[in-house]
Amino acid sequence: MIVLFDLAMQSGSRPSPFCWRAKLALKHKNLAFEARATAFSQIRSLGDGSFKTLPIVDDDGRWTGGSRSIAEYLESHYEDAATLFPHDPQRLFANFVESWVDTTLHPQIFPLVACAIWECLPAPEKAYFRQTREIRLGTTLEDARDRSLLKISDLRASFGPMRRILKTQPFLAGENAAYADYIVFGALKWQRLVCRTPLLDASDAIQAWYARVDNFAPTED
Amino acid sequence: MIVLFDLAMQSGSRPSPFCWRAKLALKHKNLAFEARATAFSQIRSLGDGSFKTLPIVDDDGRWTGGSRSIAEYLESHYEDAATLFPHDPQRLFANFVESWVDTTLHPQIFPLVACAIWECLPAPEKAYFRQTREIRLGTTLEDARDRSLLKISDLRASFGPMRRILKTQPFLAGENAAYADYIVFGALKWQRLVCRTPLLDASDAIQAWYARVDNFAPTED
Repeated sequence: MIVLFDLAMQSGSRPSPFCWRAKLALKHKNLAFEARATAFSQIRSLGDGSFKTLPIVDDDGRWTGGSRSIAEYLESHYEDAATLFPHDPQRLFANFVESWVDTTLHPQIFPLVACAIWECLPAPEKAYFRQTREIRLGTTLEDARDRSLLKISDLRASFGPMRRILKTQPFLAGENAAYADYIVFGALKWQRLVCRTPLLDASDAIQAWYARVDNFAPTED
Repeated sequence: MIVLFDLAMQSGSRPSPFCWRAKLALKHKNLAFEARATAFSQIRSLGDGSFKTLPIVDDDGRWTGGSRSIAEYLESHYEDAATLFPHDPQRLFANFVESWVDTTLHPQIFPLVACAIWECLPAPEKAYFRQTREIRLGTTLEDARDRSLLKISDLRASFGPMRRILKTQPFLAGENAAYADYIVFGALKWQRLVCRTPLLDASDAIQAWYARVDNFAPTED
């Protein structure tokens, strides 16, 4: 069975947005897999030791790291299963959605959730996480969170492109969800699992879309 | 010859971002056309009188209004010419880029340029433009411009998704420019023609992309 090494908090929660992309890609391909709880500090012991981030997949000895590489591996290796990239032979669409999420949504969500992630880490990992992330954020985890809360309406507004697409179709990828949807879902699931309160208003069309994808998503462990 | 009714300022300048999408689509298809200077107040006299916005195309009596409808008309009617939507049979990619530009870039550029557009309008059109646009902006044209200038770094940052795509390919649509590129180009050309100063830093990779598309674009009149 395929093993997905899935970033786990001390509580067992699995919030990583990139791991969610991979879990949904595996589910989409209808592949049996074990999502194995993995701490940051265990990453370097996996595979040939060259991996630095999660997710990582071990498919009967074929190791692949990184959400997008995993999606492309599954797409080419299990080509008879449902495609993750319908009507997107060159990945123009998936690449743009990925760039949009990574450069627009994640940079706003990360400062919002970083402090809560720190609270959920195993004790030996807390100091390293705080040190490296505060350098990235340019401030303390607490200050980054407080500033993000003041700009939450900007973050909600950033979902504008998607809100408009969902006026005419149920999923970003069309009539059915595909990898582009899973990329955005990962960002929202990350925030939801860490912060517990929904980012978007209940009346937001994106909330209905989120519920549709979440209904299909694997359970957390 | 195809006639494109093109929004013109009193000076003769043609800044409309939606008209630029149509002009570049016509150029892409290698079709001869006249871009005819048109004032806001002339729109209702065109075709059957049902049009409310520009661009409008008159192709030997076949009238089409709206940049996207024009692109789709050209795509289906001149299907032997180069496609505007390469590798995008369902328009997933073009639709997302269009939604991104319309909901993220235009709402930031419009308040920046609205006051300068007002200055360039024919005298009889100024009062109506100011009244309707100040309602839309929720403030005066001058205040909207001043506030936008304070947030210009946010606007530059909003191009992040595109900046990342251009690290690996020369155009949004891949090796060659296509309709998705023209959508973004229209937004920047609009700002450039109205404000005269470039929005982006000379070192920004998007500036090099802009120059490549501008080199291909039809001249202003």
